[in-house]
Amino acid sequence: MDLTPSLKAQELHKKLAAFMDQSIYPNEKAYAEQLHMAKDRFAILPLMDELKAKAKDAGLWNLFCPEEFPQYCAHGGLSFVDYAPLAELMGRVVWAPEVFNCNAPDTGNMEVFMKYASDAQREKWLTPLLNGYIRSSYAMTEPQVASSDATNIELSIVKDGGEWVLNGRKWFITGAMNERTKIFIVMGKTDPENANRHKQQTQVLVPKDTLGMSIVRPLTTLGYDDAPIGHAEIVFDNVRVPLENVLLGEGRGFEIAQGRLAPGRMHHCMRLVGAAQRSLELACKRAVSRSTFGRPLSKHQSVREEISRSFSEIEMARLLVMKTCKQIDEQGPMQTTDMIAATKTTVPLLVQNVIDRCMQLHGAGGLTEDYFMAEAFNYARWCRQADGPDQVHQMALGKQIIDRFAE
Amino acid sequence: MDLTPSLKAQELHKKLAAFMDQSIYPNEKAYAEQLHMAKDRFAILPLMDELKAKAKDAGLWNLFCPEEFPQYCAHGGLSFVDYAPLAELMGRVVWAPEVFNCNAPDTGNMEVFMKYASDAQREKWLTPLLNGYIRSSYAMTEPQVASSDATNIELSIVKDGGEWVLNGRKWFITGAMNERTKIFIVMGKTDPENANRHKQQTQVLVPKDTLGMSIVRPLTTLGYDDAPIGHAEIVFDNVRVPLENVLLGEGRGFEIAQGRLAPGRMHHCMRLVGAAQRSLELACKRAVSRSTFGRPLSKHQSVREEISRSFSEIEMARLLVMKTCKQIDEQGPMQTTDMIAATKTTVPLLVQNVIDRCMQLHGAGGLTEDYFMAEAFNYARWCRQADGPDQVHQMALGKQIIDRFAE
Amino acid sequence: MDLTPSLKAQELHKKLAAFMDQSIYPNEKAYAEQLHMAKDRFAILPLMDELKAKAKDAGLWNLFCPEEFPQYCAHGGLSFVDYAPLAELMGRVVWAPEVFNCNAPDTGNMEVFMKYASDAQREKWLTPLLNGYIRSSYAMTEPQVASSDATNIELSIVKDGGEWVLNGRKWFITGAMNERTKIFIVMGKTDPENANRHKQQTQVLVPKDTLGMSIVRPLTTLGYDDAPIGHAEIVFDNVRVPLENVLLGEGRGFEIAQGRLAPGRMHHCMRLVGAAQRSLELACKRAVSRSTFGRPLSKHQSVREEISRSFSEIEMARLLVMKTCKQIDEQGPMQTTDMIAATKTTVPLLVQNVIDRCMQLHGAGGLTEDYFMAEAFNYARWCRQADGPDQVHQMALGKQIIDRFAE
Amino acid sequence: MDLTPSLKAQELHKKLAAFMDQSIYPNEKAYAEQLHMAKDRFAILPLMDELKAKAKDAGLWNLFCPEEFPQYCAHGGLSFVDYAPLAELMGRVVWAPEVFNCNAPDTGNMEVFMKYASDAQREKWLTPLLNGYIRSSYAMTEPQVASSDATNIELSIVKDGGEWVLNGRKWFITGAMNERTKIFIVMGKTDPENANRHKQQTQVLVPKDTLGMSIVRPLTTLGYDDAPIGHAEIVFDNVRVPLENVLLGEGRGFEIAQGRLAPGRMHHCMRLVGAAQRSLELACKRAVSRSTFGRPLSKHQSVREEISRSFSEIEMARLLVMKTCKQIDEQGPMQTTDMIAATKTTVPLLVQNVIDRCMQLHGAGGLTEDYFMAEAFNYARWCRQADGPDQVHQMALGKQIIDRFAE
Repeated sequence: MDLTPSLKAQELHKKLAAFMDQSIYPNEKAYAEQLHMAKDRFAILPLMDELKAKAKDAGLWNLFCPEEFPQYCAHGGLSFVDYAPLAELMGRVVWAPEVFNCNAPDTGNMEVFMKYASDAQREKWLTPLLNGYIRSSYAMTEPQVASSDATNIELSIVKDGGEWVLNGRKWFITGAMNERTKIFIVMGKTDPENANRHKQQTQVLVPKDTLGMSIVRPLTTLGYDDAPIGHAEIVFDNVRVPLENVLLGEGRGFEIAQGRLAPGRMHHCMRLVGAAQRSLELACKRAVSRSTFGRPLSKHQSVREEISRSFSEIEMARLLVMKTCKQIDEQGPMQTTDMIAATKTTVPLLVQNVIDRCMQLHGAGGLTEDYFMAEAFNYARWCRQADGPDQVHQMALGKQIIDRFAE
Repeated sequence: MDLTPSLKAQELHKKLAAFMDQSIYPNEKAYAEQLHMAKDRFAILPLMDELKAKAKDAGLWNLFCPEEFPQYCAHGGLSFVDYAPLAELMGRVVWAPEVFNCNAPDTGNMEVFMKYASDAQREKWLTPLLNGYIRSSYAMTEPQVASSDATNIELSIVKDGGEWVLNGRKWFITGAMNERTKIFIVMGKTDPENANRHKQQTQVLVPKDTLGMSIVRPLTTLGYDDAPIGHAEIVFDNVRVPLENVLLGEGRGFEIAQGRLAPGRMHHCMRLVGAAQRSLELACKRAVSRSTFGRPLSKHQSVREEISRSFSEIEMARLLVMKTCKQIDEQGPMQTTDMIAATKTTVPLLVQNVIDRCMQLHGAGGLTEDYFMAEAFNYARWCRQADGPDQVHQMALGKQIIDRFAE
Repeated sequence: MDLTPSLKAQELHKKLAAFMDQSIYPNEKAYAEQLHMAKDRFAILPLMDELKAKAKDAGLWNLFCPEEFPQYCAHGGLSFVDYAPLAELMGRVVWAPEVFNCNAPDTGNMEVFMKYASDAQREKWLTPLLNGYIRSSYAMTEPQVASSDATNIELSIVKDGGEWVLNGRKWFITGAMNERTKIFIVMGKTDPENANRHKQQTQVLVPKDTLGMSIVRPLTTLGYDDAPIGHAEIVFDNVRVPLENVLLGEGRGFEIAQGRLAPGRMHHCMRLVGAAQRSLELACKRAVSRSTFGRPLSKHQSVREEISRSFSEIEMARLLVMKTCKQIDEQGPMQTTDMIAATKTTVPLLVQNVIDRCMQLHGAGGLTEDYFMAEAFNYARWCRQADGPDQVHQMALGKQIIDRFAE
Repeated sequence: MDLTPSLKAQELHKKLAAFMDQSIYPNEKAYAEQLHMAKDRFAILPLMDELKAKAKDAGLWNLFCPEEFPQYCAHGGLSFVDYAPLAELMGRVVWAPEVFNCNAPDTGNMEVFMKYASDAQREKWLTPLLNGYIRSSYAMTEPQVASSDATNIELSIVKDGGEWVLNGRKWFITGAMNERTKIFIVMGKTDPENANRHKQQTQVLVPKDTLGMSIVRPLTTLGYDDAPIGHAEIVFDNVRVPLENVLLGEGRGFEIAQGRLAPGRMHHCMRLVGAAQRSLELACKRAVSRSTFGRPLSKHQSVREEISRSFSEIEMARLLVMKTCKQIDEQGPMQTTDMIAATKTTVPLLVQNVIDRCMQLHGAGGLTEDYFMAEAFNYARWCRQADGPDQVHQMALGKQIIDRFAE
């Protein structure tokens, strides 16, 4: 099991690290200020556009683009093992992934277009997405059902006079309110009575300005609105789109969801490892710069134990991510459901705990926006729910492991 | 050890519970909406004023008022054991304590006025505070020093021409931005070279509109600004107040701080028990109303174990609070430092974990403002830092226990 | 809720504490040596008999005896609230309870005789048990079924020619191998087809030397055989006893089990609090007497945090026990199932963790028999299984709490 | 970072797995019985000798032998990455490593002879050790000092008339009582006043029957004597050995200790991963074979969550071990102190918790000798103290990480 990224990826890693040092960390304060001052929190920040241009120039663009689609990126495509250390680096600043056109949910959506869209759909939506000109949303989760089981989805999609008619309610639709978001991939049911529960769903493309689709409100998690990307609650009230807006084909929505979600979960975990690593580094700096009761924190045995524990846990989280990546690279995500579930249910909680510890070392200030940690804590906490509560994945994994060993 | 509240307190508890049912829970949504719509998030919400009037009429007013100061409340004063179950009830809604004039930091500040102020100071500030007409702040914590050790405080207070002149920076000054806040109790050093480190400090009263005092920014914790009360960073730049504005006397600031902080810590813990209890109840309701994979959550063994664990932990937290209250009632806070530290370092973390579990049972929605839990989670997390990081108190408690048993 | 023990109990507590100081702690080494040297590890140790005589003389005898049976003890009976602090004291040395005739399973068995036996049965067995002349066992748990649900018990009891005939297998039969054990209370099924699952069971008395009953082996838990009391696996092969040996009546076995188990669980928890408390005190002594890297352990912040945490957790465990005791005293065990379950599923695990921490502070020696802790750790671990795995009780408690709050 | 073992090691793994299936697991019961029946618990069990012969024949012998010493093994030496999966397999049965001549402390001692002994010493002791004819002990830990810091060692070694004279006390001397143990490597101080604390120590060889060396007692941990290998307390009272019995040279004892301990720690962790993995597999089997309240354990969501969590944690522990192995292979142990400390302080505790969980799923029986788990639990618990308490290693690691990131 060779977890070494390719030479190409190693080169990109060096360039990316330098870019983070030169252009991202020094701009954290400016970014926060632009966002604070913004009249519309979901508008584009000038700084983001500057940095995107710079990153594109530097060849640090669309790094997520998988190796089976070399045509969509300058770097020729990267494996999961290649991408993980890059995503980890980007995860060290919450808003950094967008600079490299690597932010959720756009990466997942672009992969959907690469894998499942028609040429026309790709030309219309994938091209501007790859260029970073527009943003997109993926509308799957619904407030009234346990959406982690995609077969529970209830939004109705009915064929009527050469159009699909959508009715229903979605929430936690990431990116929906961003002013550049132009297209929604919407999952719903076209055939709710189909005996095969996995053939009931269809995914259709809904442009943002379509009549009948209204954003009810931005959602917050632990007090964060995650602007300018954010999460929305949306109502679909007789929303009509042409039949050609179907993705892949009627009744194939579940198949798309399956293909989309595994990489998404892994990308979150990769970034969270970076978030934890950076928190650890902040805690180390704090430990030498702050004294209590006459000694620097760094000389307190409790602080050393916590730093030691955090280091060890981050190592384990990173290795778990890497092994899972390797298995996906070699066997595909469908043969890696055990390790993906293990990663998804382990890393966010572990990272939440690491960050909690590092915040605590910072005193009251650790909880504020003066540091990256509080927002990263929210990101980790949120990932324990994103793509389904951990418990649902533990159920599936537990069952699989019991079956494996109980003969 | 009789943990039963007095009959008077039991009566108040019944009335308060009824008030919560009739006037608080049904208004949670309206309160949230008024705050969302508010142009100034730190302005007074009309709903709050209505509810305050109602609570005052109902005799549910200044419930915190301790038994040694019967003159300041209609109910004649309550012990810690009496007050704890009332504060627990109020803690079930984050903004409820203010309705009963029982919110931090005003309760602590009013106690300071009761115990340490001159008659003139009391007339000017305590009377309107007791009436709920004005609000107040307590300015102790400073960003650049470990403020949990009050002797580290650095704000300079110098006597100059019949005035005190203040220079320094404070943060996490709760209530500072609220539009009704009129008075700050400010802790600083008048005699930094005094060999007795506990005689260096003085507390003075600074009216909000005093020249030279400027609010730098509202602080957030985990994304919450806690409006309309909130926490501020404040600069004191040659702020001048008359000599009569000293509290108790020059060099007696540490003594006041000691007297103020113990009740404050206990009040937080009392309220947090209520926050945890309500989260548990929400989780129980959720468990019967939500199904996953064909069974209601309430029938999943894992859910039952989590409910069971949460119930048991809340029982323990509540008992720890109550025993500490009893000991304070009987022996005073100075003889109860062990139990106060045990409570302060145990209850917030325990409650954070209970709420985390209950949020998780609610799916993605559990993290949003649709429920009380996310904000309560932030409150619990924050209390692990408020009045000093838990670790500082654990240090003192650990030392005390080692001394006790190591002979 | 007054958790204060009666004056009588307070007096006994003083005497018991003095007795522990004078006669128990100073004999711990001698006791261990006698047991090591013993040819038969389940024989009576001379030291135990000496101490029992002394305790009886001192009026520290049958302290468990409940207040509804004053006739069976010199002290006139104690409530649960009275007994808890006494049992806590005894729990500070694993073998101490027997000195005061207060050890499991004899206390529970004596209560069964008090509550459910005929006069003849009481005269024959209860009297010598109360005198400490004989020991007894309670045979309920079976290896092949989940015995925490008493309705699963399978040992067959059939009426045949004026006798009960027993066939089956039991394990974890505490005390079975002790040389003074003379009587077994055996639970089995006389009516396995009864539609009422709670009427299928009967309990009968089986003298130890009865033909057909054979002890298969002593069982160990974590390497401990718990000699000279111990736990046995036993086979019943056509064991015959006269019909008069039935307890209470045919079909009433479940009722007896219900009545017996609640106090047993509470007694374990009371003693475990004492075990944790003593471990904490040992850890404090260790902290001042051992240095690493140039400082006594007591000055390491991590040690202080662990002592602080342990102190706080023990306080909570003790309070949980006491509140449950109070509720049993006032409402009876059947109305206290929630709190009994909360105590049973919380205290042993909490105590296990406290002891684990205190052992760790002792270095490698902490795991040996040089200290009381390793054996107490085993006791706490074992109690998470005794009377049913915690999970079974959490299931019941979780269900009960959900029903309470979900309306 | 390629974690794949060599082809040679993969072949050995296949053979070893088959050997475990055919000769180890089927003999677990017989082994336990022979040990129970043994008059001398530290004598050689016939079964062990049979299995050793068989393993030697199968080429599964001295698998620990490192690649820099190909001359000492038939397989030509294995790297850490090669050996880890083999040690994991052996760790699935507590006594299995000895079958393959791979048990502690002999492996570490043989490495000491390989690296530091003279030809004569090697011929006399290493050859029979490699053949499994004799056993050995490593005497370093002392009861009265924190031995994790080797500079604290106090046993006195004085040169006198052409001999070394040893005086002092050691404990936790693994293997000392085993009847085949013939040689002790003893660490002591020859130059306690040397200003260089790392030059004060010397290691000398002491044959078991040397006058003045007496075994005081076998030590137990959590009730286990770990017979027939076991741990002893030993007194050295004017023990005299010839000068040629020095290892490497006077004053070089610390250097040897450094070289010996790192592999020892890793071997424990490798085996513990196997212990955890087997416990997980036992728990899976239990989950399908046991029902409670009408459903097999495998269908309880809580069981699935615990299996899922255990699987994930074991994956992480294994990866942490493997990464550390790789780094040792590439950079040597002195450049891998961070990862060795991370592994040593993480894996035993993690494994203890996994086993605790798996035991609990087995009901009361899970704590007995009917399963491998209880003894493995003791092994994991003990490893948190072996080679120094985890806290000491966390101190060093914490310091190292703080220095790394705090610049």
